[in-house]
Amino acid sequence: MRSRYISDFVENDAISEVFLIDEKSLGTTRAGKPYINLNLRDKTGSISAKVWDDADVIFKQLGASDFVEVSGKVERYQNRLQIKVGAIRSLKSDKIEMTDFLATTEEDVDEMFDELEKICSTVGDKYFQQLLQHFLSDDEFVRKLKKAPAAKMIHHSFIGGLLEHTLSVMRICDMLTGHYSELNRDLVITGAFFHDIGKIDEIESEKGFNYTREGNLIGHVIIGYRMVEEAISEIKDFPDKLYAELGHMILSHQGKLEFGAPVVPMFAEAILLHYADDLDVKISVFKKVVESNRNTGSEFTDRVWELDTRVYKEIEKRQKD
Amino acid sequence: MRSRYISDFVENDAISEVFLIDEKSLGTTRAGKPYINLNLRDKTGSISAKVWDDADVIFKQLGASDFVEVSGKVERYQNRLQIKVGAIRSLKSDKIEMTDFLATTEEDVDEMFDELEKICSTVGDKYFQQLLQHFLSDDEFVRKLKKAPAAKMIHHSFIGGLLEHTLSVMRICDMLTGHYSELNRDLVITGAFFHDIGKIDEIESEKGFNYTREGNLIGHVIIGYRMVEEAISEIKDFPDKLYAELGHMILSHQGKLEFGAPVVPMFAEAILLHYADDLDVKISVFKKVVESNRNTGSEFTDRVWELDTRVYKEIEKRQKD
Amino acid sequence: MRSRYISDFVENDAISEVFLIDEKSLGTTRAGKPYINLNLRDKTGSISAKVWDDADVIFKQLGASDFVEVSGKVERYQNRLQIKVGAIRSLKSDKIEMTDFLATTEEDVDEMFDELEKICSTVGDKYFQQLLQHFLSDDEFVRKLKKAPAAKMIHHSFIGGLLEHTLSVMRICDMLTGHYSELNRDLVITGAFFHDIGKIDEIESEKGFNYTREGNLIGHVIIGYRMVEEAISEIKDFPDKLYAELGHMILSHQGKLEFGAPVVPMFAEAILLHYADDLDVKISVFKKVVESNRNTGSEFTDRVWELDTRVYKEIEKRQKD
Amino acid sequence: MRSRYISDFVENDAISEVFLIDEKSLGTTRAGKPYINLNLRDKTGSISAKVWDDADVIFKQLGASDFVEVSGKVERYQNRLQIKVGAIRSLKSDKIEMTDFLATTEEDVDEMFDELEKICSTVGDKYFQQLLQHFLSDDEFVRKLKKAPAAKMIHHSFIGGLLEHTLSVMRICDMLTGHYSELNRDLVITGAFFHDIGKIDEIESEKGFNYTREGNLIGHVIIGYRMVEEAISEIKDFPDKLYAELGHMILSHQGKLEFGAPVVPMFAEAILLHYADDLDVKISVFKKVVESNRNTGSEFTDRVWELDTRVYKEIEKRQKD
Amino acid sequence: MRSRYISDFVENDAISEVFLIDEKSLGTTRAGKPYINLNLRDKTGSISAKVWDDADVIFKQLGASDFVEVSGKVERYQNRLQIKVGAIRSLKSDKIEMTDFLATTEEDVDEMFDELEKICSTVGDKYFQQLLQHFLSDDEFVRKLKKAPAAKMIHHSFIGGLLEHTLSVMRICDMLTGHYSELNRDLVITGAFFHDIGKIDEIESEKGFNYTREGNLIGHVIIGYRMVEEAISEIKDFPDKLYAELGHMILSHQGKLEFGAPVVPMFAEAILLHYADDLDVKISVFKKVVESNRNTGSEFTDRVWELDTRVYKEIEKRQKD
Amino acid sequence: MRSRYISDFVENDAISEVFLIDEKSLGTTRAGKPYINLNLRDKTGSISAKVWDDADVIFKQLGASDFVEVSGKVERYQNRLQIKVGAIRSLKSDKIEMTDFLATTEEDVDEMFDELEKICSTVGDKYFQQLLQHFLSDDEFVRKLKKAPAAKMIHHSFIGGLLEHTLSVMRICDMLTGHYSELNRDLVITGAFFHDIGKIDEIESEKGFNYTREGNLIGHVIIGYRMVEEAISEIKDFPDKLYAELGHMILSHQGKLEFGAPVVPMFAEAILLHYADDLDVKISVFKKVVESNRNTGSEFTDRVWELDTRVYKEIEKRQKD
Repeated sequence: MRSRYISDFVENDAISEVFLIDEKSLGTTRAGKPYINLNLRDKTGSISAKVWDDADVIFKQLGASDFVEVSGKVERYQNRLQIKVGAIRSLKSDKIEMTDFLATTEEDVDEMFDELEKICSTVGDKYFQQLLQHFLSDDEFVRKLKKAPAAKMIHHSFIGGLLEHTLSVMRICDMLTGHYSELNRDLVITGAFFHDIGKIDEIESEKGFNYTREGNLIGHVIIGYRMVEEAISEIKDFPDKLYAELGHMILSHQGKLEFGAPVVPMFAEAILLHYADDLDVKISVFKKVVESNRNTGSEFTDRVWELDTRVYKEIEKRQKD
Repeated sequence: MRSRYISDFVENDAISEVFLIDEKSLGTTRAGKPYINLNLRDKTGSISAKVWDDADVIFKQLGASDFVEVSGKVERYQNRLQIKVGAIRSLKSDKIEMTDFLATTEEDVDEMFDELEKICSTVGDKYFQQLLQHFLSDDEFVRKLKKAPAAKMIHHSFIGGLLEHTLSVMRICDMLTGHYSELNRDLVITGAFFHDIGKIDEIESEKGFNYTREGNLIGHVIIGYRMVEEAISEIKDFPDKLYAELGHMILSHQGKLEFGAPVVPMFAEAILLHYADDLDVKISVFKKVVESNRNTGSEFTDRVWELDTRVYKEIEKRQKD
Repeated sequence: MRSRYISDFVENDAISEVFLIDEKSLGTTRAGKPYINLNLRDKTGSISAKVWDDADVIFKQLGASDFVEVSGKVERYQNRLQIKVGAIRSLKSDKIEMTDFLATTEEDVDEMFDELEKICSTVGDKYFQQLLQHFLSDDEFVRKLKKAPAAKMIHHSFIGGLLEHTLSVMRICDMLTGHYSELNRDLVITGAFFHDIGKIDEIESEKGFNYTREGNLIGHVIIGYRMVEEAISEIKDFPDKLYAELGHMILSHQGKLEFGAPVVPMFAEAILLHYADDLDVKISVFKKVVESNRNTGSEFTDRVWELDTRVYKEIEKRQKD
Repeated sequence: MRSRYISDFVENDAISEVFLIDEKSLGTTRAGKPYINLNLRDKTGSISAKVWDDADVIFKQLGASDFVEVSGKVERYQNRLQIKVGAIRSLKSDKIEMTDFLATTEEDVDEMFDELEKICSTVGDKYFQQLLQHFLSDDEFVRKLKKAPAAKMIHHSFIGGLLEHTLSVMRICDMLTGHYSELNRDLVITGAFFHDIGKIDEIESEKGFNYTREGNLIGHVIIGYRMVEEAISEIKDFPDKLYAELGHMILSHQGKLEFGAPVVPMFAEAILLHYADDLDVKISVFKKVVESNRNTGSEFTDRVWELDTRVYKEIEKRQKD
Repeated sequence: MRSRYISDFVENDAISEVFLIDEKSLGTTRAGKPYINLNLRDKTGSISAKVWDDADVIFKQLGASDFVEVSGKVERYQNRLQIKVGAIRSLKSDKIEMTDFLATTEEDVDEMFDELEKICSTVGDKYFQQLLQHFLSDDEFVRKLKKAPAAKMIHHSFIGGLLEHTLSVMRICDMLTGHYSELNRDLVITGAFFHDIGKIDEIESEKGFNYTREGNLIGHVIIGYRMVEEAISEIKDFPDKLYAELGHMILSHQGKLEFGAPVVPMFAEAILLHYADDLDVKISVFKKVVESNRNTGSEFTDRVWELDTRVYKEIEKRQKD
Repeated sequence: MRSRYISDFVENDAISEVFLIDEKSLGTTRAGKPYINLNLRDKTGSISAKVWDDADVIFKQLGASDFVEVSGKVERYQNRLQIKVGAIRSLKSDKIEMTDFLATTEEDVDEMFDELEKICSTVGDKYFQQLLQHFLSDDEFVRKLKKAPAAKMIHHSFIGGLLEHTLSVMRICDMLTGHYSELNRDLVITGAFFHDIGKIDEIESEKGFNYTREGNLIGHVIIGYRMVEEAISEIKDFPDKLYAELGHMILSHQGKLEFGAPVVPMFAEAILLHYADDLDVKISVFKKVVESNRNTGSEFTDRVWELDTRVYKEIEKRQKD
């Protein structure tokens, strides 16, 4: 872990550090000279940077989400710090310590994965069990699952966020199928495992969290459905009926057409998964909003777009002990 | 329990039974003579009835939801059975065995109530505990709670339905506050107990399930809030902050303005209650739809209005044993 | 072709013909005896039928969409004709002349297919061309394409309807990519060919036009995407970029999330396909509405649900010659 | 009244005045030092202020909406004036002349109140009359009514605004019940008096106009309903029917669920009140928009969010005399 | 006025009366024989009629909304009366007493018109005054205005209904411009006079109330605007500014795009007219709903589509005398 | 053409050029001195300007959209260039070379007009042909048509844009009426010619593209309808039926009420025109978005408001040659 992060920078620092490019664009001064606008990031925040010399040559050398080694000087401009770049060059990502650049779950990734595996092991249906094992025994898949975020911005947008969210939804589904014991638990648990699996390919998590081309054009719902479909095609005699039902769980989990579900839930197991998923997202948004609105001197936040309301921050966590 | 119900009637029967009036209206034949249209009900179904003689006199003697003793003859008209009324007179409802007229929960009411009390007893906050006891120790309230339906039509529309739904939501909240342990469990459990309590006065459950005047003009959300408010005014030093927070739980539990919530959930405990309530309603609608669509020879029902979709009936309850 | 159709039946006919079962359900008379309600169809219309004897035994012998040979008598009941069934038995569908049972396009199927192939042949991109050939050289696929309807109810709901609609959309795309010559014509034409291909499996067209289990649970958009995906996996070196772009054409062709598109059109080629498809559907609905509202003595139809307006019928086809 | 207001400040002024805190938050410089951002207000406008020294200590001493005595210097930063605070301390609000801090109605408050009382006196129903007197004879209530604003931002957001709006709605209702003479005038006038009464507690009007905790969590509709309910409980024999009808007037006055009405108007008197209220709001928004868009050199304003349109400013008030 | 109306018919009557054709269509019996379905009307109601003989010949002789002299016999079919037609022939409408066929306002038409003229006379602006006189001095226009309904179905759907509604809106505007004295009264009153004037040509009121071709294709908003435009073109020097402002009043009076207003109200006078119009429609719908739901034995009606709610019928008109 | 444009300005330039005023407003410094804010434009962009001396006198001398000759100095303020005005005076627009100030179509205007005339000439119906000639032979109309933009902001917002868009829609309609040969081609082509004609008066195109008073208050749909109506009134015996049908084409071309169409398309010709128009707008927005988002280093743009999606920029124009 390196010693110096963006949050530590002060005016007039001379710095030489590695950053991740968030955005880059080529501008032109009124006088016609090209320059590069960059937004650079590490795990503590982001800072803008300007390259004034050889901008058009350098622009072509930099990839859209490259890791770059930058030396330069920290300036104040319009009351915000920015970097005036002296030298900049791209680095290979295999030389990079990712946790320097992206926020990470506060939970223990391996413990979470163990618990997820344990819940999976309780699925009794042999076809669903084979399907789950197909993924759990795929080391590359597991490696990605442990790193992927659950969203780019709104919730669980950190390394391990997808695992954390998936496990949370599986736990809720475990509880609720205990409560509604007439439902098909195997279908619900398996559906919960796969519901957001497409996010592994929707959001590129090697560097920064950007939507991939497929993430934009196809979307995580269909990507996830396709991953399951491919695995099923390798399992002998997987019943068509189960395939269609599980497929429906994934395709309908966003609950409404206007949220991007191509079909809406048509049986109780699918509606249950939708509510478990949606609840977990909402609870995590509330938590995040409260955390990022400490110290404002008011009991309420401003209106929060995703929740369409102001948020009340003053519920005491435990009434008594 | 009586021996003969509507579902047993056949053409040409001479009958003499007690029914509940569902609807009554005064019509006039083309020839200008008044007659009464009735819709009569017992717990097995409903049947229409016509009173041709002395219609205007009798009409005034019958209340809108009276129990009536009817003798007459069963006729077939346009391929449906109806009663040609010979004699009809209103009865006092205290002479009536209600379970002859309204469907009833299949669960044991006293067991459900015991479990509900047990969950209430785990609420540690002393003010919430006093408030719960205020209601649980009120025999008249408990009697009503055990009988009330949770809705007129859509879900849990039977004697004991409100208790069944309330208990189910409380169980779910119990589980989910275990999962989200940072939330204020006391607030969630207490809110769950009270969320639909206004339905006791919204829907008249002595005879038939009709919306009362207050049920229509004020609505169960506000009625319930008012019941809690009145009880709180009798509890010494009940903190304003808790009052506002619990009030918000009740007022926001329908989740969105367009569903009749005057405010939307502004903290995590309130959103959790909304999801628990909504999920329980949806699961019970799915179950009811599947049950009432057996034997149609198709894997899917027709479009169901409340769910905005066709329902798939073929999920097997348990994949294996 | 048989000599006698439903539209020819008159009261008191003794008939013995083959029909397709549209709906079947098991009822019980008030007296507790089971009977079967059927809705039977041939290409000229539908008629209801009742089986009064041995209903529960026979009910189990009849499949939901079977072809059945029925003998019985035509009766009038509530001013509509129905069949009182004497004998009924299921037939194998391979003994059936389908065009006796389902309406058929008025165009020449082979001519349409030839033109469709010809437009496909103009696609210059070698990968798209391989993909198109993959389907066009699959006899089973071509056989199904020639028979499938484009919808169950709203438009092109007849044998050959999918082919007719697909060809129409391809022609429009051909014209419009001539007009907007900067667009990628190969992508548009290929997308047009595949946009509704999933309907082959969404709607079962062997007997009657019913949604299949997959049609309901997965939907034609995803089914079509999956068919293309499977074919692409067999084409060597098919570029990922083209795959994502073509996939997006199929997934977004319904234009808006609320119409069931999991993603909305993100480039001009996709928006063009959406408009071409939607226009062709709308024009065909207008035509169908005008045709089915002749002889009503008014210049306008009643409100048409799919169009959200009344329709004006009096445009003269050609102002002059 | 003091001699110097925010609108008079110029760069480099040394000032020492009392302000109302609108917003406060604690920031940190890049170098890690805490500072306080304030937004200060008097009746002529607002100005930002920064406290650079002892920020964390002072931050805790300042309440969210305190009146503060501030001495410091007026600086220009990014072309806007702000105060660099030298010293700051909170004052008790009873030492404050409120009209220095909040805008005030241009009407005469006492004259408005007299007219309002006069309209109330025409209500003939004895129960409604008792209810009105309950409030009009409560000095504390009257004091608050004369000061409350009708909204935080959109309309009548000034001292006396609630009184001005309520009186305007009552006048309109008086006129319209003359026009629609078959309506129950007493119910309409009484409903108009109470429709927004909850705003007295929804918006805190002692200092600044901020939503109170109850204002946010419960909302003015329910607060107002509760105030009326409490008063009715003290009136002997107040008829249940009138209580439900008047309650409905208050609860439904926002007209639609999506505007926060828990029930929609179910009788003509309620719909009339809704229109009178809504019209008065809209007219006042139009007036405010025109006033704040003088001198822009165009006949139209930019799009106004609350009205969802641009506003035309050039109607001449009186065509001729 | 004739002696015998539809509401008096009883089974087996031999009748010979004049009716208005509401609907006509040509059917075919299962046996292939054509017959005519008619819906006939007089002011007391409607009745269906069948022509069994020479149906195709007679069908061509009857216009879509003809007055017809019918002789035949009253039969009962499926419990409803209908006419079996013996002879039928069309009549010229100038021989008809219209009030036998269409409901009529209960107000005095001439008194209403006098009051409307009186309000118009208070318009001081000379151009608006000329414009009003242009219409008021046009006898043909006045004749039509006195007869037109204000709508086909929803409100004021009777002879004189447009006059009644227009006068009511003008009275309200008169009152409200007194209250909001800063508004341009001349513009509001003139706009109120013209706002629905296009309904004269939208709904054909000579026989039955049917939308005309222009009523459907162009709509009353634009028709009314065009009538005003044509009149203005004949007034010397009518100012462009006034023309645009008055035009906007008419075009925007339905308030929202989704209600068919091509532009939304952009100044206070236009919003006031919209509210006055909308309120008058709503009040008249409430009145109509209550009137047509007497004697149902419930305090509430069923859900009313236009109001999106059930209606409470029990408000007493006057609390006391 | 002048030698120096806004895009060439650099800091400290002394300039003396002609500009078009986009916006002007009168501000006041904190010290109470008035100054003028201007936004000035030429065809290469816009720049803000400040007049500090004699501001209130000069303000009155400048019209809202005047051409002004300005001398002054280019300064940098908050990192953007602005003009500190020395002297400013209005010019007559007849001395101005418009193409210095407004962007212009890249197509040849006369060639486009020739093609448009040619398509018009194929309209066979003699009344439509007369109507088209009425406009095409009106030199003033043609001059305006060649200059008008098709929109202020969204699409075709340049000189000649209306002609370019109209021609494009006519070409598409020409193609599609070839494809749907049963439609009335004359009606479609004539409707396409007139559909946006009202934009000639909606948007003032002599200087800048601003909505006129009529453009705002009446809107281009009604303005266009009125232009056609006036022309028709001068054509002898123009059939009412054709007038209503063509009127409907214009009034309904925006397709939905919420887009400002006062009526929705009621026949196939109208729906076809709507799709042709809407498609052409959408394609041109996509093109414009891609062009203005070059060089951002990402395959996708940010969310585009008009399209409600991000746009994918990487479709290659031609797959191969």
